[in-house]
Amino acid sequence: MKQHPIDLLDKFALFSEHWSPRVIAELNDYQFKLAKFEGSFVWHNHSETDEVFIVVDGEMGIEFRDRTVHLSQGQMIVVPRGVEHRPFADKECKVMLIEPRGVVNTGESGGEYTAPNDVWI
Amino acid sequence: MKQHPIDLLDKFALFSEHWSPRVIAELNDYQFKLAKFEGSFVWHNHSETDEVFIVVDGEMGIEFRDRTVHLSQGQMIVVPRGVEHRPFADKECKVMLIEPRGVVNTGESGGEYTAPNDVWI
Repeated sequence: MKQHPIDLLDKFALFSEHWSPRVIAELNDYQFKLAKFEGSFVWHNHSETDEVFIVVDGEMGIEFRDRTVHLSQGQMIVVPRGVEHRPFADKECKVMLIEPRGVVNTGESGGEYTAPNDVWI
Repeated sequence: MKQHPIDLLDKFALFSEHWSPRVIAELNDYQFKLAKFEGSFVWHNHSETDEVFIVVDGEMGIEFRDRTVHLSQGQMIVVPRGVEHRPFADKECKVMLIEPRGVVNTGESGGEYTAPNDVWI
């Protein structure tokens, strides 16, 4: 059932909300999620897991406490567990996130940006 | 140390061998590997883990015992654990693989295509 191609841009066309990851695939107990970033997210961290961001289209940045990193299409970054970060994007940016099933987008920070988890498209 | 952008095409420019995955990042105990496919690989499976293929540039296919799936840039597929498969590409195709650390490219099949494991670029 899982052995079919998944087209990332086709999946991005299925939703428009910002900062609200959609699950598109599972690899063992890891999930591949698509999200649209625009504006600034909240400072947060994930104490239990690293997190990968891959930029599929557009440009984004991640603020860390000591510096800011910029990412564009075809670039990825691993944010290690426990490291505080704040993603942002001046214009809408299409991003794939990879992390274990069950990770909440705002980590332990909560707040209005906290999205429903495990929403598949 | 891991909080730096990784540019996929820049990394692909660092090697030319086909069917010989290079590790570019780790997410917990999972690895992100880049590989260049050209020609036909061997039939194999990975009994312990699912495996993700993401096409970064070009076109490739995967033969399964009952059908063949074609993938192009911006598409991905999850090959479930234990499912026999054989990747192929008519022209060179740039692919990112995601799987747990320690997975050998030919699974239990072995043979001349078996690449050294855990080679970082």
